[in-house]
Amino acid sequence: MTDDAGGPTASGGSREPADSADPVTASAAEAVLAGLGDIRESLEGFYKDLHQHPELGFQEHRTAGHVAQALNEWDYEVTEEVGQTGVIGVLHNGDGPTVLLRADMDALPVREQTGLPYASTATGTDSDGVEHPVMHACGHDVHVTCLLGAARLLASRTDAWQGTLVVLFQPNEENGSGARAMVDDGLAQRIPRPDVALGQHVLPAPAGCVLTRSGVMMAASDSLRVTLHGRGAHGSMPERAIDPVVLAAMVVVRLQTVVAREISATTPAVVTVGSIRAGSGPNIIPDTAELQLNVRSFDEEARTRVLAAVRRIVTSECAASGAEGDPEFETLSEFSVTDNDEEPTSRIAAAFEASFGRDRALTAGLVPASEDFGELPAGLGCPSSYWGLGGIDPDTYRKAERAGTVDRDIPSNHSSRFAPVVQPTLDMGVRALVTASLAWLAPRPKGS
Amino acid sequence: MTDDAGGPTASGGSREPADSADPVTASAAEAVLAGLGDIRESLEGFYKDLHQHPELGFQEHRTAGHVAQALNEWDYEVTEEVGQTGVIGVLHNGDGPTVLLRADMDALPVREQTGLPYASTATGTDSDGVEHPVMHACGHDVHVTCLLGAARLLASRTDAWQGTLVVLFQPNEENGSGARAMVDDGLAQRIPRPDVALGQHVLPAPAGCVLTRSGVMMAASDSLRVTLHGRGAHGSMPERAIDPVVLAAMVVVRLQTVVAREISATTPAVVTVGSIRAGSGPNIIPDTAELQLNVRSFDEEARTRVLAAVRRIVTSECAASGAEGDPEFETLSEFSVTDNDEEPTSRIAAAFEASFGRDRALTAGLVPASEDFGELPAGLGCPSSYWGLGGIDPDTYRKAERAGTVDRDIPSNHSSRFAPVVQPTLDMGVRALVTASLAWLAPRPKGS
Amino acid sequence: MTDDAGGPTASGGSREPADSADPVTASAAEAVLAGLGDIRESLEGFYKDLHQHPELGFQEHRTAGHVAQALNEWDYEVTEEVGQTGVIGVLHNGDGPTVLLRADMDALPVREQTGLPYASTATGTDSDGVEHPVMHACGHDVHVTCLLGAARLLASRTDAWQGTLVVLFQPNEENGSGARAMVDDGLAQRIPRPDVALGQHVLPAPAGCVLTRSGVMMAASDSLRVTLHGRGAHGSMPERAIDPVVLAAMVVVRLQTVVAREISATTPAVVTVGSIRAGSGPNIIPDTAELQLNVRSFDEEARTRVLAAVRRIVTSECAASGAEGDPEFETLSEFSVTDNDEEPTSRIAAAFEASFGRDRALTAGLVPASEDFGELPAGLGCPSSYWGLGGIDPDTYRKAERAGTVDRDIPSNHSSRFAPVVQPTLDMGVRALVTASLAWLAPRPKGS
Amino acid sequence: MTDDAGGPTASGGSREPADSADPVTASAAEAVLAGLGDIRESLEGFYKDLHQHPELGFQEHRTAGHVAQALNEWDYEVTEEVGQTGVIGVLHNGDGPTVLLRADMDALPVREQTGLPYASTATGTDSDGVEHPVMHACGHDVHVTCLLGAARLLASRTDAWQGTLVVLFQPNEENGSGARAMVDDGLAQRIPRPDVALGQHVLPAPAGCVLTRSGVMMAASDSLRVTLHGRGAHGSMPERAIDPVVLAAMVVVRLQTVVAREISATTPAVVTVGSIRAGSGPNIIPDTAELQLNVRSFDEEARTRVLAAVRRIVTSECAASGAEGDPEFETLSEFSVTDNDEEPTSRIAAAFEASFGRDRALTAGLVPASEDFGELPAGLGCPSSYWGLGGIDPDTYRKAERAGTVDRDIPSNHSSRFAPVVQPTLDMGVRALVTASLAWLAPRPKGS
Repeated sequence: MTDDAGGPTASGGSREPADSADPVTASAAEAVLAGLGDIRESLEGFYKDLHQHPELGFQEHRTAGHVAQALNEWDYEVTEEVGQTGVIGVLHNGDGPTVLLRADMDALPVREQTGLPYASTATGTDSDGVEHPVMHACGHDVHVTCLLGAARLLASRTDAWQGTLVVLFQPNEENGSGARAMVDDGLAQRIPRPDVALGQHVLPAPAGCVLTRSGVMMAASDSLRVTLHGRGAHGSMPERAIDPVVLAAMVVVRLQTVVAREISATTPAVVTVGSIRAGSGPNIIPDTAELQLNVRSFDEEARTRVLAAVRRIVTSECAASGAEGDPEFETLSEFSVTDNDEEPTSRIAAAFEASFGRDRALTAGLVPASEDFGELPAGLGCPSSYWGLGGIDPDTYRKAERAGTVDRDIPSNHSSRFAPVVQPTLDMGVRALVTASLAWLAPRPKGS
Repeated sequence: MTDDAGGPTASGGSREPADSADPVTASAAEAVLAGLGDIRESLEGFYKDLHQHPELGFQEHRTAGHVAQALNEWDYEVTEEVGQTGVIGVLHNGDGPTVLLRADMDALPVREQTGLPYASTATGTDSDGVEHPVMHACGHDVHVTCLLGAARLLASRTDAWQGTLVVLFQPNEENGSGARAMVDDGLAQRIPRPDVALGQHVLPAPAGCVLTRSGVMMAASDSLRVTLHGRGAHGSMPERAIDPVVLAAMVVVRLQTVVAREISATTPAVVTVGSIRAGSGPNIIPDTAELQLNVRSFDEEARTRVLAAVRRIVTSECAASGAEGDPEFETLSEFSVTDNDEEPTSRIAAAFEASFGRDRALTAGLVPASEDFGELPAGLGCPSSYWGLGGIDPDTYRKAERAGTVDRDIPSNHSSRFAPVVQPTLDMGVRALVTASLAWLAPRPKGS
Repeated sequence: MTDDAGGPTASGGSREPADSADPVTASAAEAVLAGLGDIRESLEGFYKDLHQHPELGFQEHRTAGHVAQALNEWDYEVTEEVGQTGVIGVLHNGDGPTVLLRADMDALPVREQTGLPYASTATGTDSDGVEHPVMHACGHDVHVTCLLGAARLLASRTDAWQGTLVVLFQPNEENGSGARAMVDDGLAQRIPRPDVALGQHVLPAPAGCVLTRSGVMMAASDSLRVTLHGRGAHGSMPERAIDPVVLAAMVVVRLQTVVAREISATTPAVVTVGSIRAGSGPNIIPDTAELQLNVRSFDEEARTRVLAAVRRIVTSECAASGAEGDPEFETLSEFSVTDNDEEPTSRIAAAFEASFGRDRALTAGLVPASEDFGELPAGLGCPSSYWGLGGIDPDTYRKAERAGTVDRDIPSNHSSRFAPVVQPTLDMGVRALVTASLAWLAPRPKGS
Repeated sequence: MTDDAGGPTASGGSREPADSADPVTASAAEAVLAGLGDIRESLEGFYKDLHQHPELGFQEHRTAGHVAQALNEWDYEVTEEVGQTGVIGVLHNGDGPTVLLRADMDALPVREQTGLPYASTATGTDSDGVEHPVMHACGHDVHVTCLLGAARLLASRTDAWQGTLVVLFQPNEENGSGARAMVDDGLAQRIPRPDVALGQHVLPAPAGCVLTRSGVMMAASDSLRVTLHGRGAHGSMPERAIDPVVLAAMVVVRLQTVVAREISATTPAVVTVGSIRAGSGPNIIPDTAELQLNVRSFDEEARTRVLAAVRRIVTSECAASGAEGDPEFETLSEFSVTDNDEEPTSRIAAAFEASFGRDRALTAGLVPASEDFGELPAGLGCPSSYWGLGGIDPDTYRKAERAGTVDRDIPSNHSSRFAPVVQPTLDMGVRALVTASLAWLAPRPKGS
């Protein structure tokens, strides 16, 4: 195991050295980022406010409003309500390439337990009308803040670059429908065709680092709702019931064998049952049980195999219970793998190494999380690259790494305790976006 | 297995013949019940209305109001709001024994699926503030209606009996706290001390039958809420989590071994997990899972053994998952066994046999359901007896019995499809209450 | 639950008192048993020798030889090799009823761990050619010894009784084929038709007690071998296998739900997987797994239901594993319920009570063990009764009973630590057989 | 996932091109291998004979005898009985490097089901005295045959190379103790110190191919025997038992969660329970159950984590069953990872590519199997490399690959149906050994 082992952890040593340093990008980036110190306090304030006001997917009205207002101030051409709550800003700055930078805006139905002074106490109502506590447990607030910071700095130094900058604030990444919604809402007609689409995601890696990877970087993800039909009865008369609680438990237990037995050791895959629901009291055997589950895979063969195994197991366990009705499978979301194109990724890696040094410009391992980012370049017909942004206090991270307790001690995305450190996370997020975009937008001498 | 085998099913053959017929009771009952034909239609209407207006425990305001109003009309001394929503009516009718007849009034958080024209579409809010569909899925509407019918008939023919009749309408039987609440609210001070306390319960047995049993008739019941503490994480990174969904599933699976392996074949016991709840989406491993479970037993040794096994298994499965926090156990309700006193039960059985014949006056098997009825005689210091009332269309029942599909085809109490036939259920419920009470209240020749 | 609760434990209180004492039997028994003191030491020696020389079913050559030799000495007409290794002795003693007394002779493939000075170290080879340690773990050595004692005493006091005594020593009770083998080998042609067939079994109840029961006393038993077909592979490549170890484990786990969920609390049933076998090393996933399982039930409906559930679960779990071949089910043995006829059982109970007193003549609960004894009266066309014989030191038993640890501390039949106390077990076993047979054979005054 | 994904499958595209062709080696190899046609028939005969006469570890007397005889014929200095049954042959051929070539000789306790005309019907007795069918299910017969072929060809053309050739035939690789035994038996004193130690293993990859890999190539392996202590009882009285069959099943089921939940998707690991054993009949609950299990891992952190989880789960499941005795853990074998040194691996890869072409000189993925080969270079203080040798008919393999059914249709090592095709497997095995050794032993012009 080399670079495949560590999930989001970095393993710099395994990467080929960048083809060559990129002094032009580095120099342009230095110029643009000179203003970072002046806006840092404002960005941090914006971030904390946003963290306290998380919004569920397709409900990012407040967030989108703030974004649009800011982009307008900085003279972007702004289009709102693209794919319901998405926002696009375009800044034309002479001839040159077009670069799209993307941030996602939505939060999660998680009750925040970080203990942060700016922790969220917000609630939101999901599409089924159920109210939940809501938290930016996946760090999209970091993404929005950093992209606004980069947008502002690039807008303030149009002398340092040329071409067209598109900043895109996407709704509802979490269930995989936001990028698609923007594409379906005519995204390609609303912006110039990008030469490259770029995005980043904060991860449980050391803050101050960025992590790139060519090829498949993030997993495909399939989410299903499975409804199991038993037969209810009084809790004291199980013989009159087909107990859906026991059935659901057997399904969950049996599903563990998919990854443990049906996939080779070297094929990464995950089957998670994130939710199990049946009954409402101790003493009534309910009629049905509902599972919500998620499958991660990195190639189509594994994906097909795992999804088939899930269906086979659910169906057979229903038969083992003597269930009368067939189980129901409902697809909740589907994400493809995030597959970074070779050329832009190499270019960005070179720019990052030139600007941040080898210690901070790392190579990513496979990340089992998923993204709908890929829908944007797919819809726009352009290449793309997506990188990771460290969000954990470096000392804390390194200590846990030495103790071998990263998995245990470092809360990851979607945890109710996921808490990126404000700095250097935000600074590095801004720097990465600026640097990467300038790898296209920095004016080059002819012929270079 | 003879009479122990069939749960609520009747097995007349195994009962000792009643000591002697009881012509005095039979004759008085005939007189009182002569009026049944006149009130039948009114009772049926009351029943259907009540069925359409079910109320959760301690919220039986509408039901209690109708009850109190009717009792007042019939000249009972009425006390309302005993134990929150309980109602007592007392009818003094000269010297003689005091008989208490009890009905429970509360409904269940079940979405009715009977398809009856008078099916409930009501909802109610439980003590946690959660709204549920509500249904009279346990037949308490039958109990209330029959007791009102008996109260009316007995009040209209005070010439046919002597003594004191106490009719008691109890709230919140379902979670086992209503009878206790009435006792704690001074029940013993509010009524004369009964010579006997009587009650009945509609069961999935042929309508038109009654089922008596001396000694233990219904199970002890212990309901627990168990909270399992795992550790949440992104669904794609199970290695960072302690998955409470898998833990909960393992607990449910393991709990099956308690009855299957730790209790002798001839010791009746049930462990039902009626509710399992964890997570809210496919892709976030939650922090905790919650089980609500119920244990049925018929003697203290089995009860102790099963409850200890439940705790041992839950605790050990948490350890197997490497869970950090201890599981939490919360007692939701406790019911003792329903233990019918020998003398009153024999007396009632004799009266039933004399009035209804051997074919309809059956002996009950052990009933795995539970009751808080026993709290009333315990709180009042009097003997008691409790019998079953068939509620299923006799033809349907017999057909299922011959096909061996009773358990499958006859919805039982607490099922969303539990639907007692209106007649002869209501008639028989009234007749049983009248006949049983007259076994004490019918005037007897001196010396008999 | 009263008399159904206690498995083999006695519950004297629940039995109807014997119709009437039986002074004739008691007096004849006293006469015959007067010689017990003289043969006690010899019987004890025989018992310990037999215990040290256990033989598997249909291999009871040494035991049968000793039995035949002794019966010949006492002037019985002896027939050997009935049903392979069975022995019959007939003693004609004038006109009168014919009574058959039966003992079974075979031992079990269990490694004795009693620590007794006369513990077995014997081995034997089963019908598959596999060698096992062998032990009288079910107490058949007690049965043989007691029946020889009774045979000797009755033969020595032919003045005290009249009629015909048939003593029958049966092979291979354990897998249910020995009684059938004797019947098939012409048993009915070899002996006079008995008026009654009697047998006894030593149980984990207080030594010195006997336990009778009318009607169903012992369970039906069905033993199956289930072969599960997976697909083998190197242990490191589970994805190339269909793991039969995991499949077998899931089947075992799922089978727990049959008793826990599919049978009512008051229906006694047991599903035991006594053997699981798959693979031979840590690192090769084998092709198949084999389970041997046993189902106990007390009525045909439960038996049918449980056996159907076992098949459904096995088949469905194979499907859940994606197994290619169908599972195989092989019936290893089938025992019917042991159903004691009313009249002879009452007669014996009365005789026992008259001779031993109420404290030692107890009523049995349902015994979940099984017997092929019933094949004999079925094959001979006579009524029958079968009783239990306590084998545990009474003080030890009572102490465990008070502590509620009988199940834990008192090794039961088939345990490697099952160790009946020699006395008063043997004495009582002889006395019970003599007394019960004299309830028919004691000369009665005309008209009685 | 690129080269990590495929287990033993080849993925040529992911390998860096060899630094440079190696015409010297290629030319020397051509000379030596010119004789292959003459010995092919003899080798094939030897192979089939060996396949029919498999011997368990440390019992390879016949095999070792044939090997020693042949080496003696070809003028090797032969030492027998090194590490019990190991054989060493040394051929001095002037100045130059020393190369050690290793083959392992032992077979497995598997009943062959290949249907081959030369299938094994042999049996053998393991160290516990139990007899098993025995089969060369891991292809060590291929290794022995190919090494003998290479030894013969190199001995017949000493003009084509110079230096010292050591051929080593190792016993008992399967349980990981054979290489260690040779080292402990003074291997380093018996042979000149090698410049490199080389070995190969036949794998389910296309015959005619070789597969090299730098760094970790094969898994660490830990095999354990786990004994679970329950309490036996009659099968009808589970309440008197602590059922070790159910306990063992729960352990097996729970162990599936280790790989499924406690290891990241991108960390390869395997937990296989290869054997489960409890009880001997349907109706006696046994006292104990025994599992044999194997853990595969590729780095120490994963290894530690998985082994700790196994212990935690076993111990907790015993507690969940209320088991009285602690479970016992016995280490059966331990293999470290097979870690190929960079320099020799590159050298061999270059030589293979030069001789066999890119299509047949492939790069290996991680192989989840394990090897004790590494003990030899560790004990001798020399670098090493180990490669894979395809053994499956190429057409069959490619067809299965296209159909995505390799895992299903191509029996792998340790399967009872593992059947390498004789050719081109043997030819390629000989060619690979000759070619790789000549990468050191081919005479080079000065300064090259």
